[in-house]
Amino acid sequence: MEQKIENWKVLSSEYIAHEPWFTVRKDRVQLPNGNMIPSYYVMEYPAWICVIALTKDGRMVMERQYRHGVGRVNYELCAGVVDHTDATPEEAAKRELLEETGYGNGYWTFFLKASANPGTHNNYTYCFLATEVEKVGESHLEPTEDTAVELLKPEVVKSLLEEGKIIQGMHVASLWKYFALNHK
Amino acid sequence: MEQKIENWKVLSSEYIAHEPWFTVRKDRVQLPNGNMIPSYYVMEYPAWICVIALTKDGRMVMERQYRHGVGRVNYELCAGVVDHTDATPEEAAKRELLEETGYGNGYWTFFLKASANPGTHNNYTYCFLATEVEKVGESHLEPTEDTAVELLKPEVVKSLLEEGKIIQGMHVASLWKYFALNHK
Repeated sequence: MEQKIENWKVLSSEYIAHEPWFTVRKDRVQLPNGNMIPSYYVMEYPAWICVIALTKDGRMVMERQYRHGVGRVNYELCAGVVDHTDATPEEAAKRELLEETGYGNGYWTFFLKASANPGTHNNYTYCFLATEVEKVGESHLEPTEDTAVELLKPEVVKSLLEEGKIIQGMHVASLWKYFALNHK
Repeated sequence: MEQKIENWKVLSSEYIAHEPWFTVRKDRVQLPNGNMIPSYYVMEYPAWICVIALTKDGRMVMERQYRHGVGRVNYELCAGVVDHTDATPEEAAKRELLEETGYGNGYWTFFLKASANPGTHNNYTYCFLATEVEKVGESHLEPTEDTAVELLKPEVVKSLLEEGKIIQGMHVASLWKYFALNHK
């Protein structure tokens, strides 16, 4: 018989921070076995998106970007946040690709949903696959963005993955799924 | 010419929380373009590990577990934290597999390194591939763990991935890499 795993019970809850990029909830929880955790912290975020974008000539639209958590520059997919003004995660992904890289149009499909950390984050990342995208404008970075766009052949991206030069977990997940489905 | 992407400069730094599962650093940073971010929050954690463990008869050792961030029960790999007493991430992974599932021995190789969020987290997750593991004891869960172990065929795990029933990003990344390299 399948062992039943039950949800935890929240006994009380309070916000200890409520800033745009740092909203933290502290829950007092009771586990099904009766044990209590007096302070369990959950980071609340809007949904996030990322995009595997392939140009008409089959290049992947990648970005090099500094990330302050790990203190390093790495290759990433185009990624961002679903804003209140975005009707859907797909719309957010199209907006972010255009803003960050200047690429648009093409054919879009939902590709993967994952959580950066289902224990501590309340949100999901939605990844989209966009094929036959084309340059339709210039990139318009926000004042806090500092990103270099590079068009790489899929086999080069696969090598970067294998060499550990792409480390953002959601992007690693999306790209390995892509290479699992497209054996190059 | 390759566009140079530089690291940010930390102007000042303070800890706003210093608990075992919630250590948060607030940095005042300056970007290469001169822009300032007065409050940039970094979550500090020890290294994390996860394990793709295959038994001698080719089953994957999976866990069903409630995760309070997303408020749901999902399938996951065995995973945990590198303790001060673990000499290496691999040793931590062996300890966690034994504690959580009772499985041990077998052949171990480093498989993947990724970050849950390189913008906000200072740590990495190290995934290991363990083959021919065998049941060598009983699982010993911590009081705050509530986990069901299931031995699943790889093709069943692949279906769970495709159906979105495995959502922990590092685990999704590790498993899609596994299926990219082992076409089942």
